Amino acid sequence: MQNNQLLEKLGSLTVEEKIGQLVQLTGDFFEGDLDTVVTGPLKKLGLHQNYNVYNTGSILNVTDREKIIQLQTDYLEKSNHKIPLLFMADIIYGYRTIFPIPLAQTCSWNFESIEYAASIAARECYEEGVHVTFAPMVDIVRDPRWGRVMESSGEDTLLAKKYAESMVHGIQGRQGENSIPADKIAACVKHFAAYGAPVAGREYNAVDMSEHMLREYYLPGYQAAIDAGVKLVMTAFNTLNGIPATGNEWLNRDLLRQEMKFDGVLISDYAAVEELIMHGYAEDEAAAAKLALVAGVDIDMKTAVYANQLENVINGNEELQQLLDDAVYRVLKLKNDLGLFEDPFRGLKESRPLLATRILSDEHKTAARSLAEQSLVLLKNEQELLPLSKQAKIALIGPYAEETSTLGMWAIKGDERDTVNLKTGLLKHVDPEQISVCRGSHLLPDYARDALGKYVDKLPVETVDEDVLLQEAVRKASEADVVVLALGESIYQSGEGGSRTNPTLPEPQLKLLHEVSQLNKKLVVIVYSGRPLILTEVAAQADALIQAWYPGTMGGEALANILYGTANPSGKLAMTFPRSVGQIPVYYNELKTGRPNLPENGFYRFASRYIDEANEPLYPFGYGKSYTTFDYSLLSVSRKEMSADKPVDIEVSVTNTGKYDGKETVQLYIRDQFASVARPIKMLADFKQIFLRSGETGTVQFSISEDMLKFYGTSMKFESEPGDFEVYIGTSSQETPLTFNFALRAGEHDE
Amino acid sequence: MQNNQLLEKLGSLTVEEKIGQLVQLTGDFFEGDLDTVVTGPLKKLGLHQNYNVYNTGSILNVTDREKIIQLQTDYLEKSNHKIPLLFMADIIYGYRTIFPIPLAQTCSWNFESIEYAASIAARECYEEGVHVTFAPMVDIVRDPRWGRVMESSGEDTLLAKKYAESMVHGIQGRQGENSIPADKIAACVKHFAAYGAPVAGREYNAVDMSEHMLREYYLPGYQAAIDAGVKLVMTAFNTLNGIPATGNEWLNRDLLRQEMKFDGVLISDYAAVEELIMHGYAEDEAAAAKLALVAGVDIDMKTAVYANQLENVINGNEELQQLLDDAVYRVLKLKNDLGLFEDPFRGLKESRPLLATRILSDEHKTAARSLAEQSLVLLKNEQELLPLSKQAKIALIGPYAEETSTLGMWAIKGDERDTVNLKTGLLKHVDPEQISVCRGSHLLPDYARDALGKYVDKLPVETVDEDVLLQEAVRKASEADVVVLALGESIYQSGEGGSRTNPTLPEPQLKLLHEVSQLNKKLVVIVYSGRPLILTEVAAQADALIQAWYPGTMGGEALANILYGTANPSGKLAMTFPRSVGQIPVYYNELKTGRPNLPENGFYRFASRYIDEANEPLYPFGYGKSYTTFDYSLLSVSRKEMSADKPVDIEVSVTNTGKYDGKETVQLYIRDQFASVARPIKMLADFKQIFLRSGETGTVQFSISEDMLKFYGTSMKFESEPGDFEVYIGTSSQETPLTFNFALRAGEHDE
Repeated sequence: MQNNQLLEKLGSLTVEEKIGQLVQLTGDFFEGDLDTVVTGPLKKLGLHQNYNVYNTGSILNVTDREKIIQLQTDYLEKSNHKIPLLFMADIIYGYRTIFPIPLAQTCSWNFESIEYAASIAARECYEEGVHVTFAPMVDIVRDPRWGRVMESSGEDTLLAKKYAESMVHGIQGRQGENSIPADKIAACVKHFAAYGAPVAGREYNAVDMSEHMLREYYLPGYQAAIDAGVKLVMTAFNTLNGIPATGNEWLNRDLLRQEMKFDGVLISDYAAVEELIMHGYAEDEAAAAKLALVAGVDIDMKTAVYANQLENVINGNEELQQLLDDAVYRVLKLKNDLGLFEDPFRGLKESRPLLATRILSDEHKTAARSLAEQSLVLLKNEQELLPLSKQAKIALIGPYAEETSTLGMWAIKGDERDTVNLKTGLLKHVDPEQISVCRGSHLLPDYARDALGKYVDKLPVETVDEDVLLQEAVRKASEADVVVLALGESIYQSGEGGSRTNPTLPEPQLKLLHEVSQLNKKLVVIVYSGRPLILTEVAAQADALIQAWYPGTMGGEALANILYGTANPSGKLAMTFPRSVGQIPVYYNELKTGRPNLPENGFYRFASRYIDEANEPLYPFGYGKSYTTFDYSLLSVSRKEMSADKPVDIEVSVTNTGKYDGKETVQLYIRDQFASVARPIKMLADFKQIFLRSGETGTVQFSISEDMLKFYGTSMKFESEPGDFEVYIGTSSQETPLTFNFALRAGEHDE
Repeated sequence: MQNNQLLEKLGSLTVEEKIGQLVQLTGDFFEGDLDTVVTGPLKKLGLHQNYNVYNTGSILNVTDREKIIQLQTDYLEKSNHKIPLLFMADIIYGYRTIFPIPLAQTCSWNFESIEYAASIAARECYEEGVHVTFAPMVDIVRDPRWGRVMESSGEDTLLAKKYAESMVHGIQGRQGENSIPADKIAACVKHFAAYGAPVAGREYNAVDMSEHMLREYYLPGYQAAIDAGVKLVMTAFNTLNGIPATGNEWLNRDLLRQEMKFDGVLISDYAAVEELIMHGYAEDEAAAAKLALVAGVDIDMKTAVYANQLENVINGNEELQQLLDDAVYRVLKLKNDLGLFEDPFRGLKESRPLLATRILSDEHKTAARSLAEQSLVLLKNEQELLPLSKQAKIALIGPYAEETSTLGMWAIKGDERDTVNLKTGLLKHVDPEQISVCRGSHLLPDYARDALGKYVDKLPVETVDEDVLLQEAVRKASEADVVVLALGESIYQSGEGGSRTNPTLPEPQLKLLHEVSQLNKKLVVIVYSGRPLILTEVAAQADALIQAWYPGTMGGEALANILYGTANPSGKLAMTFPRSVGQIPVYYNELKTGRPNLPENGFYRFASRYIDEANEPLYPFGYGKSYTTFDYSLLSVSRKEMSADKPVDIEVSVTNTGKYDGKETVQLYIRDQFASVARPIKMLADFKQIFLRSGETGTVQFSISEDMLKFYGTSMKFESEPGDFEVYIGTSSQETPLTFNFALRAGEHDE
């Protein structure tokens, strides 16, 4: 449809119909006859009785082809304006082929693989008729207590930018144009803004930060998504400096639309418009409707506020009428970009033989396995215990040994029956006689089960007494050459609403670990979790330690490939692993202080340190081991004085000095020595991945541009400042064998 | 001296002499001959060799009469300009008569007693010749990991304001004029600004917060000190939103001087001007000098930066020359306000017979004991175990049973030999046969001792094996009717540089507690600490629990009076006690969220809560038990609709329904239901203390004025907004039996 036709369409709508376009409901509003709807979902939501559901603009979380065809058909038949429905859903890291959780994906540092994974999710969505997915989430997170960290790309801004860009490209495609082609759907970046920084890591809690912090660290991820053409943005649940994000005009209009140039659809998070009342920000539904509209919220997800109130709120106010029209136009434009006016079914009604579906195809599963292999992080490997010898007798013990509930909490279409568990994965490498398997402990203690509320029903039923499990585990461990403990938190302990004050392995599993470690067997520990857990005690007892995250449909195969060396670990942490809860938040790019804690000063009192704990985390950002080793040497640095048009070009030689082929992620960090705002002790500026065969040497090139040196100064301008910079190149944020410095000269002067 | 004479004096100084006035050194710069000084302290500090120490304007931490007379005499003899030296020192909560630490004092909620205590400290300072004390510290603290919380007034802004005001009045007097009378000295409010909010509670770490947060919660304490006439302000060590406070022009000029109307002396914290370099904010000493001067720092405490650099930095720059003159003028004015031009010795040289000294006088000690009694907080008292019967056989066990190192880390003139320990205190009530005493455990485990660095030497030498101590403790406990365990962290575990990731009782003491609690004896636990410790396990094992803080010189007597009921506990927590480290920061006046955790929803997933811990702390702000009980009833509320000139007047009747006379702190909290910025769930607006005999009923009056309803809106104006408010009146921030609501009507309308 041409733009003028779109405007015509807009002009033809009644106010009621316009408002309908801004309402998002679930599928049950369209089930059964009108009476059922009125007495059921309408009443439950508090929608007034004469609300016409056939004005509704979009549907939430209906994700099946047949259902979508049925709803769309029915809707087009009964609606007056015949504008197709939009179907939106939470397809965060895979539709049916589930990839590792986002935090794990980012640990691959392979954004081509991430883009590919997103494109597969989009393809499966497209086949089933979903138009919009609520991904990517690019909220920076420094606090592993927050459950939703699993959906994030971690603590770093550069990784958030790369993640945002690759996800949007994967979901929407890289077309420069507005229209979204076949096999692609619309992406929605979330949550605007800074949702990942709630006070004390408590879900939905207030967020407070300086504008400098917001701009420097938190906004660039969203900006990258916008620059990549993302079609939608979702507001956040939290207050930002006292103002709820969903009612925050400065945030959504001044920043998002004006400065950041976003011209797509802004959708509220689930019920967030109505929650303006609970925040104490809107006195009632009418105020909430007005505040949200003025703040720039186009679609009201899953509340009755816009539907009930907007007409009265706007009544005769031309300014608000214009805002309404703008919002509706953006929704119509999104529908048009998806081609819905031409084909409301986006190809769903074309016949396609069942066998031709690509859902869970070999290609998709291979991609899921590959990304899982790249996402796993090898944290410890004493005396090269890993990879395992195929001759070794293995005792595979733990609640995750045969667990298929390893998809993470936000894989709404994921099916555990498709999932390859660890045992199954291992049996692809060795015969069953080589492996004895047992559960070893309950997944959770009873009190932790209870606290999960309705999710208790989804947990495994523990039929065997803990002591019995433990005895069996000790027996099997005693008979083995190597013990592989598959441990982890329940998927319901992370994800939305999964904040934990004490993010450790569950007690029964710690007991299992402790008992087994007494046997002095070679001990491999695999940790499934949606966050960095506190692993200090665990690491001390394990000979080898693998962070498995929730690795998705093909997780068991990926892990087995790593354990037996078919794949070589290459994952690098996208988030710091604290030594203890009391270190939180601990992150690599902390600001310089006036009294740094210098090792040579020992236990000097008046340094920025703790007296009962190291400042350093257990495992730093960027950290991750390989089965092989890499040596670094600096080949060349093009200049010691750079300027805007004369970057510093760097050549680094990397040699695989170990006996396995492997991939290294070469990380480049910059420290700005002096600036008008205190800068981080180190900031990731670039990275490169290189695959090297055993013994092979390769070259990696970097170029430090002036852009990399920019930051938000006191006047909130993003600029560089002349001065000295230190460069650190290496294998993690803490291990950087190559260092050198250079100076940025002022703009006018060239060398 | 008249102001014109002061200006004349200023005009007569050379640039070098002017700069000298802005330099603060320690006493050793004036010891021995010039050669010794040049090769000793001058060199160590990096002062250039031709720096004339007899230009120096002030001296740090020389605190003794004789020494001060000697230095001043020598200085006036040798200096060219004959401007007397200023003597400044860290006299934070007592000179020689040591009061409880500030956090404890605030728990008295008795700001008359606090003012009186401050006046005693000032009097003892005055007698010894100290001119300026670096108190009060009014940094709001929500994080008990931070060691310096002991010097603060806790988490609440109203208490910080009251504390600031009473301290300034106590130290400087309430004179409306500029001059500071005999027995009074100058106060210095610190640390400007927001030093109490370092990331992760780690000392000196970066601080980041919104301007709203800063203005609403953190600045009012400093403002109250300024309004009370405080003569000096000290800068903070931390960066605030990236800018070091000591080099922050916006903070110190725009806010502090212009908006907050401070016209006294701004002094840097210890070496903070030089630390602008470590912050990466100043490239070298010259830049640091300029940044600090421009930012408004008058006195450079204990670095060579101003002395070495300021002359060159200013060289010919008229603007900077003016800034220098302004700074020097303020220093001279302070000296003049202290009367130093008339008498450089402030009465020190007047003969005063030794017996006439008031240092450690009975009056002072009585005041210290009284404030300690009011500062102790009774956290638990099952089955009215306390007060103790004098007939009961007591086993007094623990490293604090006979400990005199209970003054806290910042009592630089406090002498442990003056200190009454707990055992001595108890023996004032009962005969020695009634009490058996033993140590029970080491104070600290070895690793914790080591981490204290140089303070190891100040810890008690542990001569007896832990098991031997424990056996003795179990034996003595078994023979007693009641066990009193005196436990605590070392004073060196809190205070500046005392950040702890895991603020609990030391391990050996927890073991002692555990062993003793197995005996099922009546168990009283007394906790000495500089911060809220995590006491969840401790409280569960104790029948009665008293938070003793560091109670000062008379602590043992105060505690004994409480234990035997000579005094009835009345302290109320000025800071929340978390259940676990993972709850930090947890504070009573948190902001409303969109998804509050409602008890009736049980384990509802999508509420702002943790899945492994309650949201509520162990002991809330304002909490503290008495030996008696109080009943509340609401007598009258003058109106339900108020306006700026029509406050809501409230009468509350309080009845002492128990068998002991006692004091209650009646607390009034307000919740702003709806506002343009999300407001706290509850905010302390006022409180009143009332003493009631057993059975007596009294009346407490409150008046809610419009001022109490003001807050910083989005435009950073401090204003009220019409609307509905909920009032909660009661005995703590969580237990508020009286509630009602009222409305604020817009300014024009009166009822």
